Amino acid sequence: MAILGYKEYFKGIGEIKFEGKDSDNPLAFKYYNPEQVVAGKTMREHFKFSIAYWHTFCGQGGDPFGPGTQSFEWDKASDPIQAAKDKADAAFEFIGKMGFDYFCFHDYDLIQEASTFAESEKRLVTITEYIKEKKAASGVKLLWGTANCFSNPRYMNGAATNPDFDVLSRAGGQVKLALDATMALDGENYVFWGGREGYMSLLNTDMGRELDHMGQFLVMARDYARAQGFKGNFFIEPKPMEPMKHQYDFDSATAIGFLKEYGLEKDFKINIEVNHATLAQHTFQHEIATAAKAGMLGSLDANRGDYQNGWDTDQFPNNIQETTEAMLVFLKAGGLQGGGVNFDAKIRRNSTDMEDVFLAHIGGADTFARALLTADKIITSSAYDDLRTKRYSSFDAGKGKDFEAGKLTLEDLYKVAQENGELELKSGKQELFENIINQYI
Amino acid sequence: MAILGYKEYFKGIGEIKFEGKDSDNPLAFKYYNPEQVVAGKTMREHFKFSIAYWHTFCGQGGDPFGPGTQSFEWDKASDPIQAAKDKADAAFEFIGKMGFDYFCFHDYDLIQEASTFAESEKRLVTITEYIKEKKAASGVKLLWGTANCFSNPRYMNGAATNPDFDVLSRAGGQVKLALDATMALDGENYVFWGGREGYMSLLNTDMGRELDHMGQFLVMARDYARAQGFKGNFFIEPKPMEPMKHQYDFDSATAIGFLKEYGLEKDFKINIEVNHATLAQHTFQHEIATAAKAGMLGSLDANRGDYQNGWDTDQFPNNIQETTEAMLVFLKAGGLQGGGVNFDAKIRRNSTDMEDVFLAHIGGADTFARALLTADKIITSSAYDDLRTKRYSSFDAGKGKDFEAGKLTLEDLYKVAQENGELELKSGKQELFENIINQYI
Amino acid sequence: MAILGYKEYFKGIGEIKFEGKDSDNPLAFKYYNPEQVVAGKTMREHFKFSIAYWHTFCGQGGDPFGPGTQSFEWDKASDPIQAAKDKADAAFEFIGKMGFDYFCFHDYDLIQEASTFAESEKRLVTITEYIKEKKAASGVKLLWGTANCFSNPRYMNGAATNPDFDVLSRAGGQVKLALDATMALDGENYVFWGGREGYMSLLNTDMGRELDHMGQFLVMARDYARAQGFKGNFFIEPKPMEPMKHQYDFDSATAIGFLKEYGLEKDFKINIEVNHATLAQHTFQHEIATAAKAGMLGSLDANRGDYQNGWDTDQFPNNIQETTEAMLVFLKAGGLQGGGVNFDAKIRRNSTDMEDVFLAHIGGADTFARALLTADKIITSSAYDDLRTKRYSSFDAGKGKDFEAGKLTLEDLYKVAQENGELELKSGKQELFENIINQYI
Amino acid sequence: MAILGYKEYFKGIGEIKFEGKDSDNPLAFKYYNPEQVVAGKTMREHFKFSIAYWHTFCGQGGDPFGPGTQSFEWDKASDPIQAAKDKADAAFEFIGKMGFDYFCFHDYDLIQEASTFAESEKRLVTITEYIKEKKAASGVKLLWGTANCFSNPRYMNGAATNPDFDVLSRAGGQVKLALDATMALDGENYVFWGGREGYMSLLNTDMGRELDHMGQFLVMARDYARAQGFKGNFFIEPKPMEPMKHQYDFDSATAIGFLKEYGLEKDFKINIEVNHATLAQHTFQHEIATAAKAGMLGSLDANRGDYQNGWDTDQFPNNIQETTEAMLVFLKAGGLQGGGVNFDAKIRRNSTDMEDVFLAHIGGADTFARALLTADKIITSSAYDDLRTKRYSSFDAGKGKDFEAGKLTLEDLYKVAQENGELELKSGKQELFENIINQYI
Ligand SMILES: [Co+2]
Ligand SMILES: [Co+2]
Ligand SMILES: [Co+2]
Ligand SMILES: [Co+2]
Ligand SMILES: [Co+2]
Ligand SMILES: [Co+2]
Ligand SMILES: [Co+2]
Ligand SMILES: [Co+2]
Repeated sequence: MAILGYKEYFKGIGEIKFEGKDSDNPLAFKYYNPEQVVAGKTMREHFKFSIAYWHTFCGQGGDPFGPGTQSFEWDKASDPIQAAKDKADAAFEFIGKMGFDYFCFHDYDLIQEASTFAESEKRLVTITEYIKEKKAASGVKLLWGTANCFSNPRYMNGAATNPDFDVLSRAGGQVKLALDATMALDGENYVFWGGREGYMSLLNTDMGRELDHMGQFLVMARDYARAQGFKGNFFIEPKPMEPMKHQYDFDSATAIGFLKEYGLEKDFKINIEVNHATLAQHTFQHEIATAAKAGMLGSLDANRGDYQNGWDTDQFPNNIQETTEAMLVFLKAGGLQGGGVNFDAKIRRNSTDMEDVFLAHIGGADTFARALLTADKIITSSAYDDLRTKRYSSFDAGKGKDFEAGKLTLEDLYKVAQENGELELKSGKQELFENIINQYI
Repeated sequence: MAILGYKEYFKGIGEIKFEGKDSDNPLAFKYYNPEQVVAGKTMREHFKFSIAYWHTFCGQGGDPFGPGTQSFEWDKASDPIQAAKDKADAAFEFIGKMGFDYFCFHDYDLIQEASTFAESEKRLVTITEYIKEKKAASGVKLLWGTANCFSNPRYMNGAATNPDFDVLSRAGGQVKLALDATMALDGENYVFWGGREGYMSLLNTDMGRELDHMGQFLVMARDYARAQGFKGNFFIEPKPMEPMKHQYDFDSATAIGFLKEYGLEKDFKINIEVNHATLAQHTFQHEIATAAKAGMLGSLDANRGDYQNGWDTDQFPNNIQETTEAMLVFLKAGGLQGGGVNFDAKIRRNSTDMEDVFLAHIGGADTFARALLTADKIITSSAYDDLRTKRYSSFDAGKGKDFEAGKLTLEDLYKVAQENGELELKSGKQELFENIINQYI
Repeated sequence: MAILGYKEYFKGIGEIKFEGKDSDNPLAFKYYNPEQVVAGKTMREHFKFSIAYWHTFCGQGGDPFGPGTQSFEWDKASDPIQAAKDKADAAFEFIGKMGFDYFCFHDYDLIQEASTFAESEKRLVTITEYIKEKKAASGVKLLWGTANCFSNPRYMNGAATNPDFDVLSRAGGQVKLALDATMALDGENYVFWGGREGYMSLLNTDMGRELDHMGQFLVMARDYARAQGFKGNFFIEPKPMEPMKHQYDFDSATAIGFLKEYGLEKDFKINIEVNHATLAQHTFQHEIATAAKAGMLGSLDANRGDYQNGWDTDQFPNNIQETTEAMLVFLKAGGLQGGGVNFDAKIRRNSTDMEDVFLAHIGGADTFARALLTADKIITSSAYDDLRTKRYSSFDAGKGKDFEAGKLTLEDLYKVAQENGELELKSGKQELFENIINQYI
Repeated sequence: MAILGYKEYFKGIGEIKFEGKDSDNPLAFKYYNPEQVVAGKTMREHFKFSIAYWHTFCGQGGDPFGPGTQSFEWDKASDPIQAAKDKADAAFEFIGKMGFDYFCFHDYDLIQEASTFAESEKRLVTITEYIKEKKAASGVKLLWGTANCFSNPRYMNGAATNPDFDVLSRAGGQVKLALDATMALDGENYVFWGGREGYMSLLNTDMGRELDHMGQFLVMARDYARAQGFKGNFFIEPKPMEPMKHQYDFDSATAIGFLKEYGLEKDFKINIEVNHATLAQHTFQHEIATAAKAGMLGSLDANRGDYQNGWDTDQFPNNIQETTEAMLVFLKAGGLQGGGVNFDAKIRRNSTDMEDVFLAHIGGADTFARALLTADKIITSSAYDDLRTKRYSSFDAGKGKDFEAGKLTLEDLYKVAQENGELELKSGKQELFENIINQYI
């Protein structure tokens, strides 16, 4: 239910309802039916759709070639605390109208950072209190919190990986406050996206030392939160580049290796963003499979990139095939561990109507819902799963099984090779698999 | 010294000598002076330059749009064993004339694979014996051997990651023979480049199961070789894509994580190829730094890619700046662990003169030698090293040092942040660093 | 109807029928219904689906990392003329079973090139005669012919742009024969894809001179064919890179500019390949729109690339959204001028079942058919077209119309600006447009 | 000579002098010796180095992930006219200290745009007067002016290609004022970089209509300026993407074709930016060669991109090999037509020392100077030019010459092919060419 503050920000737009795929109402869900059960859970439970505070309530459409185009009512107050409360009102109104259950934030999305650390802390406490009330009134929950340790100029050379210990300490202080806020708001998880943790030039960088600092920093953050009683997951959100030429958390495999290196693999999981996956030359589904294989499939940042524009475009998800293939892996992996599907996406700079952000979230939710329905049907009704399983059946018994169990030596394989003689080729049937997917879309 | 067989293949070309940078002789080294000492070692020791048997003696300039253009005398014999011996003669003549000390091979570079496994084994034994003699006569050594488990159609769905246990076994048998040949030739190392270990489509692939198979397979190969008394290093050579859409050994970070996952990190190190690094959106120097940080900087495959052509072009190294930056990291890391610099590079399809392959190797060796000289001068004579070290000096004492030692908590950082107040910005001086590099080139 | 030769090559596979989207028969069309009328024409007429002789009957799955995996019955004859006839038999059997009307070829797809020019000419005449009979018997037509002036080593430095006049002349002779064969077979069009027309290194290249040669060469080819009575279109097929680092016919805009430069724009149109479009960082639909704007939308090479593997993967089309957007532009442009939709696509190297090539073509045809149906519905039933037209309505009357007619000066605009004052922002509604497309898929 | 205003902004930094390559002074030129004659002209004349007002005096290091880090004294005044004058003072001080002769600007680089068109016009007139005086006092000249028709939200859907005639008119008014300012300041050229002329989504775009509008708009701008007596060149600066998904002026070939389409080729030339070239998958040298071939090599925007970060990083030039190859083409083309070498480059976000921008320009100027010296030496002293010329010598006489003169038919080529028989392969010698370049660096 949409909770309004003292004014309604999205006038003329009511709660978005599911109307089915034959509806021509642009302000209705065509596939996302929250209570519909698919593969044993409601869509609501599968996805835990979340709004990204930064894009939806803070972003204004600016880009490197011009300032923002989207001017919001909730930014009008000159007092930063009032402005923050207005923004929270708008946020809870929007989330309620969308019918979603979750939001995610960076500390200084909630309220503008002040000119001193002490004052910033005060502001955060104030707005946290206010949002606590909004949460209670609305039932909306916090999927995860995080700290923005990359926008402020002080972090221009990194935060946890800054060559200057004082800057690292400042980041530490800020993360403490963000953890406090997340815990105060019953956040289910806490995310680290390595904003400027990486390098612009390797020439001036001691990468080994910086990585050790980052590991140490995360250990300290984890220990602090656990000591305060935080039971949620920590997530790392990989990204290969931008803003830094090279970001340390390049992709899931890199982040998983890093977490294990520093003994963090029990507490941390991966938050996979579609556009970050594709910037790393992986697919979304590849990253999901990689995290799932490691038992670390934590959460998803739903969006899409433009394969031809080499930066993080953070467009709303609308790629039906990509999302269907992702949902196949998602369902096989048993879903997410603690996280949800957060729309880390922004409307285009020239989308300046108030309704545009609703349309965008509707399109995104429908893309995921449709993909889930399709993937479920492929798994339950088509030859797909069986075809795939049979490809590996030689490992389900006999010597193949022994191999998997570690019972064979290289010389055993040599003997098998000698006995077998030349082998028949077995088609990979890729075109058949692809046709099956498209048949069900 | 160049050892000839019964005929001279590279007539008219003698041993390549160092003549210095003022020489206009295209068939002389201008920077590579094998016995010149740089940073405590001769260039010969630093680099251990190696010829890649496959490109230099097997490749004929074919590409997906046409067959080979380079027709070699040593391929004329119709008997495969004679042809293999002729090729070995040509190889040792070439290596000797270049004045290099090493070569690298895949099993079926040495001799054409036969139509049966048993016959292939016999051929390998025969050619290994022959090359043993050439080695003894010339003093040329084997940097590393490997098995080509990707060209034969039987491996079209992978070798160690093939969904069919019989194909995996065949690969196991082949790797056994390649290990035997490598050991017979006193190979200093053994390489795994994951030819078709990866997937063309995730739709028909069980990635988790395939990765487990690959881990198991490497464990068995290591155990076999160690049992036979092999003391050298195993290397994994990462590559992100091609031939498969996704290769499992994507980059150094991924391979290092994989090796640790399967308990292989003591025996394996990384063999970094320049063009594979850049295809993975890393720089050569980044990959060196990553492997060095993990204590796994094993060997280098020297070549270069074309940043604008998204496949492995394997051109000869000629990028002065890229190689200089790499040599900076190389020197700081203390060089390679067991490996050397192997020219995994091929002349262009339209380079059809016999001298072209000499020119190419000369250009490559000079690029590395010049880069080493420049990097050494930058480290010993310029402000570079000092500037870089000072950036991190706040961690060399006081609380910064305590942080590195794991003695601080997040709350300690919070207190530092409170006390510090707002911080001055410290320039990263990237342009200064870059100017210094160029000043010394 | 499928015409068999003396034997049936694709045994067990009959003619592929339309069975509709609820069919689970992998060997049936689900969307492609040849006689179904969409937007005033049958699907058969819209598409003129064509088989690419090279991929489907010559390609064997080889790649830079291994030889072919697909072994064909029709390649078994040792006599090149018999092998060519067998291949033609297989081709016409396949085309007939697919129910398509067209094929395309390169000269030496039809028959293996001989060791002399004279003998090659004889072979071409022989096979042309044979195919003429197959055409007559089957009703299958020739969409276009072309000459392969890139595979033979003699063309390693280019054909029409070779620095050596003798090689250029040889290409000229070959093109004459290919034109003769195309005309003998009533080819409706003739294509130039600039195989190795470009450069590997600009260092050894006089680009200006090479471009002039290419222009002159095309002028001569056109003049010859017209003099022989050829009434069809000439097409240029752009591609940005591969095999050469830079191909001269980079994209449609470049090719159109080139054609105009050399006075060829009346006789030539553009043949757009999907994967070439995306390698050039354009979309398929962008290239269609570019050619259509110039009145040069000639023909389409249907396939798809992998956005993450930077070479021409030539996969079969299966991207529903990409093709739908392309069909929107296609329908608005009034379709193709003279050409058709040629499946310039190959099954994956590991697709080794005889049925795989049928499955692949079925998937491709269904993707285009479904996209056409969807695009037609979007145009006729949704708000799409109207929304798009209204965005430009200010140019349909008043000063906007005067501007388009060239009746205003810059000072007139200045006055309008002065009078208007500040303007309201008008949303581009991208998310709404995208949602509409997905609603109709 | 550096002209100061009422205060000195770059205190402690004097005029940058040439000290030669053995100097360790970071604030001295090591290669750029303005009065040194190379290939018949002084370096000063060859390059006409220019400062980009926007990056050097307006940019503050902001990026999509955080606001500016560089805080400038000259931005402190609250009155926009005073601030603009202070910035002009700083600019002329900087240009003078660098010893450069030129600058380039966008209209609203010079002074902040006001809230109304009329007030903006007044501001522009005021600052133009002020700069006129600075120019007179310093001797610094205006290489080119341009209008920023992309930052203001009103241009979010394009300027000349906006779907709304009112926005197009506003752009027209703005371009008139920018032309007036350029002419008032004796600008030698005027540039159009198509900021948001392109599309974010083809779905909502009528590309043909937009291109016609852009052509019409440029015709009107040219006619206006010519009528006012402007004798300089107009330039188009191509860029393939960013900010729009697709920019209409994709690359030089596209822009040249566009200019000819609308009859603009006599008045317009091309301004090539390095980073725009590489984003379009071309090299800098390719774009220079393309423009030179069309007789349209107008001007250069000197910078460099990061081949691995797919956006316009606008780093300062430091790539020695890339620039050397570019200077080879530059010298062969006879240099620039009317333009110069403008440093369209910005220091990194974390380069926050006042000296950094000097270091950056010094590094850039030295890179070009060194490249020019090297290229000249290659042309005059090495085998390079002769090797390249001889590759084409078969077209300098006999039938090759007849071919170039258009005297042969396709049948003539056919006869040559018949007579020639099979041809010898001629090596392209790419590795030799590359080695020669590196020998001279
Ligand atoms: Co994200
Ligand atoms: Co993102
Ligand atoms: Co390699
Ligand atoms: Co390679
Ligand atoms: Co094609
Ligand atoms: Co293709
Ligand atoms: Co520029
Ligand atoms: Co730029």
